[in-house]
Amino acid sequence: MKTVFTEFTVSTTKKVELVNITRRVEEAAEASGVRNGLCLVYVPHSTAALIANENEAGLIQDILNKVEGFFSPGAGYRHDLVDDNAHAHLASVFLGFSQVFPLRNSKIARGVWQSIFLLDLDGPRSRRVTVEVLGE
Amino acid sequence: MKTVFTEFTVSTTKKVELVNITRRVEEAAEASGVRNGLCLVYVPHSTAALIANENEAGLIQDILNKVEGFFSPGAGYRHDLVDDNAHAHLASVFLGFSQVFPLRNSKIARGVWQSIFLLDLDGPRSRRVTVEVLGE
Amino acid sequence: MKTVFTEFTVSTTKKVELVNITRRVEEAAEASGVRNGLCLVYVPHSTAALIANENEAGLIQDILNKVEGFFSPGAGYRHDLVDDNAHAHLASVFLGFSQVFPLRNSKIARGVWQSIFLLDLDGPRSRRVTVEVLGE
Repeated sequence: MKTVFTEFTVSTTKKVELVNITRRVEEAAEASGVRNGLCLVYVPHSTAALIANENEAGLIQDILNKVEGFFSPGAGYRHDLVDDNAHAHLASVFLGFSQVFPLRNSKIARGVWQSIFLLDLDGPRSRRVTVEVLGE
Repeated sequence: MKTVFTEFTVSTTKKVELVNITRRVEEAAEASGVRNGLCLVYVPHSTAALIANENEAGLIQDILNKVEGFFSPGAGYRHDLVDDNAHAHLASVFLGFSQVFPLRNSKIARGVWQSIFLLDLDGPRSRRVTVEVLGE
Repeated sequence: MKTVFTEFTVSTTKKVELVNITRRVEEAAEASGVRNGLCLVYVPHSTAALIANENEAGLIQDILNKVEGFFSPGAGYRHDLVDDNAHAHLASVFLGFSQVFPLRNSKIARGVWQSIFLLDLDGPRSRRVTVEVLGE
């Protein structure tokens, strides 16, 4: 069994931003040399999230709008007394910070409409992404 | 280490539908011959989701009602200019497209109230489910 | 390859409660003797959830408030005709019952602001947590 870790950094430029990281995740998976196993994509952050869905400009805006609608900034949160990003933490809690994909025949077996995105909820920042491939 | 993939198809009959796939997932896990490891259940779709919870008729209706309340169809989404299913994509983003279960002594170590459901958010369709068992 | 299971119990004391289980998860991961692999944290319950975020008292209250805002108890749910905890099931569906972490150099490679919490949504109860470490 092999376990291969790859890390890369995403520099965001906006307060809230979806960044397509599909190509970088797939390159890491293919470079791992693992044929069949699992691919964990992970962000070690509490104000970011990882999602996978269709890469369509209108939908990307819909997702950002929905996140802002559900988790409005500055809505009287207690955490805002020590920082100003409670809404970003809350969105991260509900969306999650990792995704697991099947790795099959040296490829991530994702659907054609499942592009992988880092969602920065409290940018602009430098965000780290860990891709762990485990298998044989 | 073994990695065993099983795929099956679920044909839904309604616009939004929860389909209990517990038995099929468990059959795949038990047929894998893996004793201890992980079981990834994955749908390669962006308008479907995978959840696990109690199989009770009232609760199933409550879940469908909650999804519709949170992600109302046709609420002015930009993606609806190119398709009519933005609400289904948004629900999939928040609910997720995979679940990971422990596999222990050749069984999925789920709780007694954790039945596994495919949630089709944009049916009726034919949906694919991948069950990947990894372990020894 | 090794697969090591550790189980522990969390006794909650309130109706809705976030319990920091980071230390217990990390002790289980380190005691496993696995150097590199994956760590699955899993609760076999349908009215509890597992999250990871910053351990700050104000934020913990914000999370509980948000959960109650999204999933208000007794809001006319059908499942409440057979039990009184539909809101707890619904919150569990949206938040999820497991998390997967990278295990690297015998440590869970989590971010410094990613403490791991069990969220009991229908306490007080005794809740079981499974930590499964898989790797080499």
